[in-house]
Amino acid sequence: MSKAFTTEEQVMFFDTDIGGVVHNLAYLRMIETCRTKLAGIAGFDLKTMADTQVFPVVVRTEVDYRRPATLGDYLIIEGRLGEHTRSSFWCEFTVRNKENPDTLYITCKQKLAVVKMPEAKPIRIPADILENFSDYS
Amino acid sequence: MSKAFTTEEQVMFFDTDIGGVVHNLAYLRMIETCRTKLAGIAGFDLKTMADTQVFPVVVRTEVDYRRPATLGDYLIIEGRLGEHTRSSFWCEFTVRNKENPDTLYITCKQKLAVVKMPEAKPIRIPADILENFSDYS
Amino acid sequence: MSKAFTTEEQVMFFDTDIGGVVHNLAYLRMIETCRTKLAGIAGFDLKTMADTQVFPVVVRTEVDYRRPATLGDYLIIEGRLGEHTRSSFWCEFTVRNKENPDTLYITCKQKLAVVKMPEAKPIRIPADILENFSDYS
Amino acid sequence: MSKAFTTEEQVMFFDTDIGGVVHNLAYLRMIETCRTKLAGIAGFDLKTMADTQVFPVVVRTEVDYRRPATLGDYLIIEGRLGEHTRSSFWCEFTVRNKENPDTLYITCKQKLAVVKMPEAKPIRIPADILENFSDYS
Repeated sequence: MSKAFTTEEQVMFFDTDIGGVVHNLAYLRMIETCRTKLAGIAGFDLKTMADTQVFPVVVRTEVDYRRPATLGDYLIIEGRLGEHTRSSFWCEFTVRNKENPDTLYITCKQKLAVVKMPEAKPIRIPADILENFSDYS
Repeated sequence: MSKAFTTEEQVMFFDTDIGGVVHNLAYLRMIETCRTKLAGIAGFDLKTMADTQVFPVVVRTEVDYRRPATLGDYLIIEGRLGEHTRSSFWCEFTVRNKENPDTLYITCKQKLAVVKMPEAKPIRIPADILENFSDYS
Repeated sequence: MSKAFTTEEQVMFFDTDIGGVVHNLAYLRMIETCRTKLAGIAGFDLKTMADTQVFPVVVRTEVDYRRPATLGDYLIIEGRLGEHTRSSFWCEFTVRNKENPDTLYITCKQKLAVVKMPEAKPIRIPADILENFSDYS
Repeated sequence: MSKAFTTEEQVMFFDTDIGGVVHNLAYLRMIETCRTKLAGIAGFDLKTMADTQVFPVVVRTEVDYRRPATLGDYLIIEGRLGEHTRSSFWCEFTVRNKENPDTLYITCKQKLAVVKMPEAKPIRIPADILENFSDYS
């Protein structure tokens, strides 16, 4: 397995809920940031997507909540490219404690289809995009 | 003062934070729902806005957090039209406990400018819109 | 199959993104509202949970994004109890267009474990809770 | 005026709405991150607050939305300590474009009261906290 693409977050108040831990939606927002920046490196640059209206859109999410993180924790989100077909690909993520990487909070897989908006028409993944992803596969 | 336009919410986990109370951003989301539905009645209907790209956009928010609401509370959000100029108007909101309306959690004023997107060019408020608002002034 | 527990939402600006459709996180917030109210009927009442610190916590989410909803759409979220073990249960959700129920936007399954916070210790599901759910199984 | 405390963000999809620009709530989430980290430096450390249940809580927000940012923009959020009383203090924020700092998107002032939770009892601001803030006043 090659290296992961990583982003970092510190848990803020808005990430937590009255249960005293990070709310389940907050992890998915953090994962979206990792995914968007990883996709940007591969060729799905934010500005380009806004211009072309070609987007990789999430069509399926599977997420396992393993341990709860809490206020002030430093988190490291790791993203990798998983399997792919002609017009869709999987991204795989973990969320760990930055200071204690053995503390695994979250594992997540997301399937993305490449579509042209606003028709949401599926489009074949350009070959150079898949190649760009290869460092993080 | 005439009647207010009201919406209702029950405080969910995603509205709270580790402090045990509703997070300050959650009230503004609830107020946006009230404001959007009030504006819809006045003629800024959501579907129409998506088509015409003419939107009332928030240019200033003033919000006072008076008492904290918590998980499971039933909230009532009241909105009224305040002062207006040729191209902008104020909306005024309160968030109270539905079962104990003397419990006032939030007061909020928002100034909205009527603009054409994506240029964000200010537009004069149509006369019929202001008239439609008059029931809630 | 028995009846579903339903909640309703209208798509607001904060639910959408620059792609012109509802953002993937927004559906999960709507599903949480349905799930929380369904769980409340079954005996996991919000106020009680805040007092007892016994919560059903989401340990896995599987969500399929089938068609995009957009600004102003009226959505109906349906929740049912799925399979269960001694200390966990599945909830199953659909998000459909209220006016055109054949328009299916989202299917989602969530596995919940019943735990005592803040230790997050798993607890056996009380028999009366499962019985209360039976109307929505 | 002394230096500001700064944080940085890149605009993600979840920050935008169907209007094509950053949603008004997203800026306040970014400002909360800046405020929380600034407060942490001054002595309101996240972990300490979770332990002591002493928090600076937002009691008033004033925010002016001057220009819209959009997807992919790099933002710089600057925070400074403003005026203070015995038990409350103001923080002042700007959100600018990182690459073109003349592009000012947002100005914001927030008044915070120092309280002991969950009673929300006001507490005098410790002298060392105000001193710690002085670099950013």
